[in-house]
Parts: sequence; structure tokens; C-alpha cells
Amino acid sequence: MRLFLPSAIFFFATQLLATASVAQSDRDTLFQVSTIDALLAGVYQPLATLDEVLTHGDFGLGTFAGLDGELILVAGDIYQAAADGTVRKMPGTAATPFISLTWFDADEQLQPPPGLDYAAFKTWLEAELPSPNLTYAVRVDGQFASIHYRSVPAQEPPYRPLKEVAKEQTYFKREKIAGTLIGFWCPSYVKGLNVPGFHLHFLSDDRASAGHLLDFSLTKGKVTLDPTTGWTLELPMDKAFLRANLGTDRAEALHAVEQGKP
Amino acid sequence: MRLFLPSAIFFFATQLLATASVAQSDRDTLFQVSTIDALLAGVYQPLATLDEVLTHGDFGLGTFAGLDGELILVAGDIYQAAADGTVRKMPGTAATPFISLTWFDADEQLQPPPGLDYAAFKTWLEAELPSPNLTYAVRVDGQFASIHYRSVPAQEPPYRPLKEVAKEQTYFKREKIAGTLIGFWCPSYVKGLNVPGFHLHFLSDDRASAGHLLDFSLTKGKVTLDPTTGWTLELPMDKAFLRANLGTDRAEALHAVEQGKP
Repeated sequence: MRLFLPSAIFFFATQLLATASVAQSDRDTLFQVSTIDALLAGVYQPLATLDEVLTHGDFGLGTFAGLDGELILVAGDIYQAAADGTVRKMPGTAATPFISLTWFDADEQLQPPPGLDYAAFKTWLEAELPSPNLTYAVRVDGQFASIHYRSVPAQEPPYRPLKEVAKEQTYFKREKIAGTLIGFWCPSYVKGLNVPGFHLHFLSDDRASAGHLLDFSLTKGKVTLDPTTGWTLELPMDKAFLRANLGTDRAEALHAVEQGKP
Repeated sequence: MRLFLPSAIFFFATQLLATASVAQSDRDTLFQVSTIDALLAGVYQPLATLDEVLTHGDFGLGTFAGLDGELILVAGDIYQAAADGTVRKMPGTAATPFISLTWFDADEQLQPPPGLDYAAFKTWLEAELPSPNLTYAVRVDGQFASIHYRSVPAQEPPYRPLKEVAKEQTYFKREKIAGTLIGFWCPSYVKGLNVPGFHLHFLSDDRASAGHLLDFSLTKGKVTLDPTTGWTLELPMDKAFLRANLGTDRAEALHAVEQGKP
């Protein structure tokens, strides 16, 4: 079991219960289309448009139909980080095969120690989480001495598994850059459905650099957490999803894809 | 990958898409409070009242606070199958630590071959499912040559894990009885959250016999399926849940608890 602070947990629980309402519980729900294992299996078909899912949140990450780059959703704006390094705002008519999102509320702010790399950041923040059994939307606004990220190239059917495609991903490195990390920390029990632990995408303040986070050196930053107590999964009625092989353990493939470095 | 019929899947998908609406998508959602692994870990605290959850469905199963018997929800009526063999209707003020429910729509009816036991029934029905990647509410109205079921005794804190408690469960056998099986078939990827495969509770037509299904010999019956395309998990802000050890694989404990026989 992960560490957490008993005193923090009671304060946190009391706060949430005190402000609970139907509207609040909707805001505190993580909504996702499809599953991470379907994406790993190569289900890159357009399963929902952004307009359809933006009724469930303004903050999240995912990818686009055909695996055409990394998707970043922040303050309701949709960004595409393409494999050629370009970043552009996308319309709500764009479609996605996989997205996770929530309404972001800045429930808790934390100050990370200076100079952390991603591994040290993970260890530090996991020890700060009130409970390892909830999902947290995580936002980091920071100055990065360096940052590594990647994007995936658009695919044509018949689609190959993500682990194969990831071999062709493009790696990027930036130095002395200001930007935001957007994503989630999920409990281990979401395995197969979403990414256990951290899953973050990067978007620079100048909106010129973006992608799936691989590593960083954080000069200074601010972490904002939004715990979610509900979780809604929408299973697409698409033949690609209905026929996907979701019966095998893809944990190894997920690890290779999420953390793969050049 | 499990078997399914390609022609059935398209018919099924077309039907569902044609009737899709917001209200319909709400009806087609499986709603659950807490997770099966939290129940296995001994989180038997009252996490929601039935009145709170019955806004999400009229058909389902679970247990009561303190693990006080098996819970059966059918046509909006709540039944408690206690470990002493009594069955009674329960009020909406009763509380639950774990429940799964949906609005039951009779989307598909199937006629099982005569004389099946539970193992043969599972093999037969799994081959009939349109896709192994959805969750199905399953209802079986039948005449049983024999049926085995069990219930669990109410517990006092500090709670022991379910596998320990299940050693003290009570077994029942009835012969030549008419009744209904109520429950779900879930895909393998719900592991940790709910029960992969079949999970059914029994309620006799005379409402005098009920419990968690272990085995049967089905003389004749009618199977009704309701596929669900959404899945909503409500994570309780209760210290017992927030502190539970949900990081270990409880598949073996689940198997022992679900299928345990005298």
C-alpha cells in the first residue's frame, strides 16, 4: 500500500463531503471513451467527436482518430501535438479513439522540491496523495531545465498494435522552457482500462511544443490536484472495439509504450 | 478471444445505434458503488443507501452493510437473503458496501438447451454473446431440477477479508423449484472492479429461497440479456475504502469466494 498522511485524509474527506452535491459529483467524475487496452490493441477508429465528450470536462488527454498525434485538453481548448513537431488547436469536430477528461477544479496545491526529474517527482507526489484508491487530475505549471516528450505518427488501416507503432514515434527535447503538464494519476485497479500511476502530456506556454511526457528536470513549479470520486466509461458500439482482443494482459506493452525512450 | 456471431453483432449494433439517445444511454449504464476488491479486502461499511442508488437502476445484486446477506434487486424491489435462510424485502433506507445495478431492458431473449448445469450454461451463453467486450445484465427465469446457493453471515468490525468470512457461509440446496437468476456477465478487463464472467443471485418465485448462485440443473428456462455500453463507478469517500489495500491481485480470493462449495 502506498503512503499517505492520515490527518490529510480526514481533512480531505470532510471537505469533499461538505461540498457534495449532484453537480459537484458530476464535476468530480473522470469520463473516458474506450479503454487503454483497446488502444494498445490498435483500435484507432473515430469513436467519438470532441464536441460529444466536452460535455464531460475541460481537462484531459488522449489521441486523435488514426492515432494522429497526442491530444491535450486544457481549459476546454483542444491541442494536437503531431509527430512532425507541430502543435495546433483543433475543432470540436475532430474525433478520438481514446480520451480521458474531467472538469478541473483546483482542490489542492502543492509545491514540489526544486530540481526533480520525473522519477523523483512521481515518488514525491505519490507520497502526498490523500489515498491511493482515487483518481487524480494532475496539473503542473512549471519552468523546465529540460523536457523530453514524444508524439505518434498517423496510421492507416489495417491498424497495428500501439507497441509496433510506438517504434516509429518521434522524440523531442526542449531546454529552458515554460509549460504545463496535463493528465492523471490512476490507482492500480484501473489496469486494462486506463494507465495506472501517472500519465501526463506537455504543452508549452507559447503553444509551440507539446507531446506525451517522457522525462523532465523541473526547475520550479506548482502542482494542482483534483481528486475524482466517480469514473464513467463509455464503451463504443463500434465493430473495431466490439471485436478487439481485450482478454490478454497488455501491462508490458503499456509500459513499453508509455515510458519508451529513444 | 471468445466466440461470437458476426451477423448477430452487426444487427445488434445497428439496433442499439438506431435507438440511441441520452436517456437510452443512461439506461444502458452499469452503475456500481465501491469495487469488488474493496469488498474482498473487508470494506463492509455502509457506503450508500439503496434509496441513493436506485436512481441508477432497478435490477442488480450486491450485499448489505456488515455483509449481512446477499442482496437481490429485481423490478426495483430489494430482497435480503440472510445466512439463516430467511428472505425478506428490504426498505430503501438499508445501506450497502457494494452493489451493481442497471435499468433492465429485455433487449435479447434466448432459449437455453434443456438440462444444462451452471458450467454448461456458461459455455453456451458466452458463445451467444454479441461481443466479449461489453457488460450484460443477465436474467434467467426457469424451472430448476436442483439449485445450490449460499449466503454470508453478518459481520462485526474489525472486518476480516471476505475469503475468511466465506468459510462461514451457509449452503442451501433446493429441488424442483421455480425462480429467477439475477446478475451480470462482465468482460475480463473489469478485474479488480467487478466480477469477470458470470455473477448471479437466485430468487425463487415464492420469494422464500434466495442467495448467491453456486450451481444448478436447469430443466427449462428463458434467458434475457441487456447489454450495457456505459459503466459508472462511484468511489466512496469513506476512510475504510480510502485506506483499503487495493494494490494486490485478489483474483484467487475472488474465485474462492464466488465459486466456493461445501
